[in-house]
Amino acid sequence: MQFISETRSGNVVERDLVLDDITGVLWTPESGAPGPLILLGHGGGMHTRAPGLLANARHLLAGGCTVAAINAPGHGGRPRDEQDRQLVEALQQARVMGRPLTPIVEELNLSLAERAIPEWQATLDALQAMPEIGNEAPVGYGGATLGAAIGLRLLTVEPRITAAAFGPILVFDALIEAAKQVTVPVEFTVSWDDPEIDPRPSLTLFEAFASTEKALHVYPGRHNRLPDYAHHAMAQFYTRHLGRTV
Amino acid sequence: MQFISETRSGNVVERDLVLDDITGVLWTPESGAPGPLILLGHGGGMHTRAPGLLANARHLLAGGCTVAAINAPGHGGRPRDEQDRQLVEALQQARVMGRPLTPIVEELNLSLAERAIPEWQATLDALQAMPEIGNEAPVGYGGATLGAAIGLRLLTVEPRITAAAFGPILVFDALIEAAKQVTVPVEFTVSWDDPEIDPRPSLTLFEAFASTEKALHVYPGRHNRLPDYAHHAMAQFYTRHLGRTV
Repeated sequence: MQFISETRSGNVVERDLVLDDITGVLWTPESGAPGPLILLGHGGGMHTRAPGLLANARHLLAGGCTVAAINAPGHGGRPRDEQDRQLVEALQQARVMGRPLTPIVEELNLSLAERAIPEWQATLDALQAMPEIGNEAPVGYGGATLGAAIGLRLLTVEPRITAAAFGPILVFDALIEAAKQVTVPVEFTVSWDDPEIDPRPSLTLFEAFASTEKALHVYPGRHNRLPDYAHHAMAQFYTRHLGRTV
Repeated sequence: MQFISETRSGNVVERDLVLDDITGVLWTPESGAPGPLILLGHGGGMHTRAPGLLANARHLLAGGCTVAAINAPGHGGRPRDEQDRQLVEALQQARVMGRPLTPIVEELNLSLAERAIPEWQATLDALQAMPEIGNEAPVGYGGATLGAAIGLRLLTVEPRITAAAFGPILVFDALIEAAKQVTVPVEFTVSWDDPEIDPRPSLTLFEAFASTEKALHVYPGRHNRLPDYAHHAMAQFYTRHLGRTV
């Protein structure tokens, strides 16, 4: 893993990272004992500096967490392959035509998740190899839409992640099956009035989590218009289950 | 309003209160500037020192709020009238026989709410007449089951209450109608696996609130087994919308 830039803002060091084909960001609070390491996955079509991801990162950093985000394949300036390109185009057409998005999102997100999982695992290996992070800090994962789909599948194969917060997501069967294998504490945030994400299947996803510690938070409005206290609640969730108080 | 006992524990002064036929408790944090005044209604068959109410009170007091609770008619040692007695008996029989509880709960809780509303208003008048509280402190309401039914109806006639948190509740039509009139910030906590309270109608109640600021929190388990962080979240809700930080 290489760092290609470093900036400081307040108590936070922000570094752009590169690992093979992967690009991403590492945010580290400068002061205090190292807190939990939280991996944040951005939403579909977004990148590591998307507003929702940054809102979560800000609250996590204020709570003493270290935060890492990587761009999914074909996102954040990474080259998009031909199959992805066709699916994204189909998605945009379906959106314009008012046709169901779920079958296209399912194919695209499962394909992206398959490629993103080894990338997240390699990133976590590299982060834990850094002396300032190490492999003692508890690890959490967070993400919405594509970031939640990747996270749900990642959790089924990655025992180092011991808490996960998911934002609004278009639910399909493979995610329900993944949720049934998840036993770590989960917080799931749903937006109730999103024109593209029917919230009702989210209740089935919430029920599917095998976790004994799980919470569902529902807010009115669209998935990308969560109130700031929703992001604060997510930060509290991690620090509650992974240690340290926000 | 008369205080018939006063005890201190930590920074909190606890006073038993009597106002006409009403009995209740006032908890005041000794130090700091006076915070919001939160009115807590206990659940059906419970009283002002029920475990869930005390859990909420503890988090609220830690956040600098003043907390008042009164016993509903026929509760907490207050005499139970003949009609209430018959309805409570019918409820217990329905529970044993596995028959639907909703029609009985609806009749009982609406009747109790009708009587409890002027009692809460008289209590709030008396509390605001106390120099240590006054009528400048913002006022919130909280309660589950019976306490939520009373609160929902109370909110429709009491403009002094400007934020409300509701716990798990057996939903019936009159409550949906009341929720449609509620415009203040609302936090609604639901238990997903309660044998007596089907959570699905709670989603309809959540949708019915006319409030632009509203949140639904869902936890697994029974209505009287909420995790402690659910009570902490409620305290944060009040202090977020009524001032002061927990």
